[in-house]
Amino acid sequence: MEIYLDNSATTKTRAEVMESIIDIYENNYGNPSSLHRMGMEIEKKIDWARKSVAKVINARTEEIYFTGGGTESNNIAILGYLSNFFISKCVDKTFNVITTKIEHPSVYNIFKQFESVLDVRYLDVDSSGKIEISELENRIDENTLLVSIMQVNNELGTVQDLDKIIEIVKSKNRRTKIHVDAIQAFGKMKVDTKKTLVDTMSFSSHKVHGPKGVGGLYVRSGYKINPIYFGASQEKGIRPGTENTAGIVGFGKACELICDNFQAETEKLYNLKKQYGMRLIQKIDDIKINSDLGRNSAPHILSISFKNIRGEVLVHYLERKGIYVSTGSACSSKVKSDNRILKSIGLNKEYVDGTIRISFGHYNSVDEIEYVVNTIKQSVNEIRMIMK
Amino acid sequence: MEIYLDNSATTKTRAEVMESIIDIYENNYGNPSSLHRMGMEIEKKIDWARKSVAKVINARTEEIYFTGGGTESNNIAILGYLSNFFISKCVDKTFNVITTKIEHPSVYNIFKQFESVLDVRYLDVDSSGKIEISELENRIDENTLLVSIMQVNNELGTVQDLDKIIEIVKSKNRRTKIHVDAIQAFGKMKVDTKKTLVDTMSFSSHKVHGPKGVGGLYVRSGYKINPIYFGASQEKGIRPGTENTAGIVGFGKACELICDNFQAETEKLYNLKKQYGMRLIQKIDDIKINSDLGRNSAPHILSISFKNIRGEVLVHYLERKGIYVSTGSACSSKVKSDNRILKSIGLNKEYVDGTIRISFGHYNSVDEIEYVVNTIKQSVNEIRMIMK
Repeated sequence: MEIYLDNSATTKTRAEVMESIIDIYENNYGNPSSLHRMGMEIEKKIDWARKSVAKVINARTEEIYFTGGGTESNNIAILGYLSNFFISKCVDKTFNVITTKIEHPSVYNIFKQFESVLDVRYLDVDSSGKIEISELENRIDENTLLVSIMQVNNELGTVQDLDKIIEIVKSKNRRTKIHVDAIQAFGKMKVDTKKTLVDTMSFSSHKVHGPKGVGGLYVRSGYKINPIYFGASQEKGIRPGTENTAGIVGFGKACELICDNFQAETEKLYNLKKQYGMRLIQKIDDIKINSDLGRNSAPHILSISFKNIRGEVLVHYLERKGIYVSTGSACSSKVKSDNRILKSIGLNKEYVDGTIRISFGHYNSVDEIEYVVNTIKQSVNEIRMIMK
Repeated sequence: MEIYLDNSATTKTRAEVMESIIDIYENNYGNPSSLHRMGMEIEKKIDWARKSVAKVINARTEEIYFTGGGTESNNIAILGYLSNFFISKCVDKTFNVITTKIEHPSVYNIFKQFESVLDVRYLDVDSSGKIEISELENRIDENTLLVSIMQVNNELGTVQDLDKIIEIVKSKNRRTKIHVDAIQAFGKMKVDTKKTLVDTMSFSSHKVHGPKGVGGLYVRSGYKINPIYFGASQEKGIRPGTENTAGIVGFGKACELICDNFQAETEKLYNLKKQYGMRLIQKIDDIKINSDLGRNSAPHILSISFKNIRGEVLVHYLERKGIYVSTGSACSSKVKSDNRILKSIGLNKEYVDGTIRISFGHYNSVDEIEYVVNTIKQSVNEIRMIMK
């Protein structure tokens, strides 16, 4: 039995998506920039994919840009906007940018780079991982260039109140731009860019059962960002380089599947999260559930801490039984010292070290719960015995 | 009948490569950064692919970095090196960088960006598209930071003498770094990085019958370049973001196929180029062959100019007969004014406008020549009649 519960790290590409990918490689392998029919044909398919992606967040087709992945999307949004100021050389520590202490490395590490040239303000979060709106309000001023906030935290599933955040930002400084890292939210939470007026928003294909190597970036019409590297004029010059055509069409297909069944799919995920959380609490002592089990957090992420065990040991115990979970973000899991997110919510060290993330996807079902919960219980008991 | 002769724009992914891609999506869909077995397994496959790519240019495995494509590889090599100087703020017009007038936009447009901050020196080329070694020698001085030269020109097939270039550069300034855009050369020309001592070299998967959305970058051991954007620590931090695992393994497979049959495959391409060139000269008047028909240019690129026609019209005539060629670089084909390369070799305007590029790949054969040459002849005649 193999049970994959690491869907926030990456997902299995859906069968329908695979069909699209194979079809492009076999029948539409042209370069979209080519003048001939094969170029036109694949260009049309990319347009279709762009429309399909746009639909998920109710954006206009022309507001969607394809990139090489979520990390690249975050970088284009942030560096591509701030470079306007660097080019005109009007950047110094008079100006500030605001983000949170719990961002993914693909945002957090950009801001780390800026610390020497800009006033970078990191917002605290409460024990659930949410920012305090009043702190945000206090820290925005007339020199705030950008606020960058993730919609769903990748380790906890915490959802920020985007509409409230946008209202506060724009009321304090209309010129401040807002970037949202929606990589864990896209396809899981309803987002309507016609109502939730962010300036840029990033997302990734492989988190929603699409192929790896493709990301998306929403850029509000009329908002000017620069490319972060140079080449020919693909994606209106914002992301040059021959398009990953099969990947883009596969991502389009994954988005079509999201829209076809959004309600039922998210209900299923919410139910899995709740069931898993409740059964684990019932069965195991000295446990902390770090994610809200209801609608206040994302449907697919469940962070759990067990006192007096080590998360990475539990991960290896579980993999031997065919169960795949993670200690936290995949992108940070090999960096031993990294528990920035869990520290930010004030979790005790005896729990921080014993944290795992279970994350659900399309291929999971309630039938797996009994086996997984029992295996976790048994493993936790064994580890606690050894570590005593 | 469909005959694809636009292999320098992109190639059809080979069947064996498709098998590898599908296998990864179905059986190894984990995130290489995950701590569990599925993470380890795909990481091993990436290591295999890295070794396979390294073998094509006789590099060490650890000298190969995977990127999102050739454009990104060129940018990481050039921006990632020059950023060392920008970070330490010791950059001004005292310092120079050298490139040629016939680079691909993914190199040329980087240098265009630098013109305001550095002395950018563009080398002329002769009528065959080769730089003059003496001009290179004269323009290198003690303030030359970087020389960036493409190995094979994407529109003409012209091959630069890399070994001579390296010898001259290093004899004039040992500290000057050398970047080679080998995107059209990789897998087509023998390159041995243990003998041809470039510092960085870029290449692309989809030009050699691998998948799109994957590039490679060779970085000589010990040579320090910075990432051009930020995130987690994938590819030793030089190219952050979840790896395009299936794409990378597919590229590895394409490289294995290159090494398995390098000699026979390139012989086939050289023969195609020669046959096509000779037949076209025999059959059509007022024609100029811009590529060397022998071993002094790449095996797979044939640039031909017909007096008094328009290349894009010929492209459309041919596509109606199932033949796909291009006017020049795919990446520039939609930019009307672009004939920078052909102007650089001093081609007369009456020929420049009537230029097409025929480029060969694994799936082409001599059986196609008769049909293609006859169709080109007939089309050129018709267009000349109309344009009179």
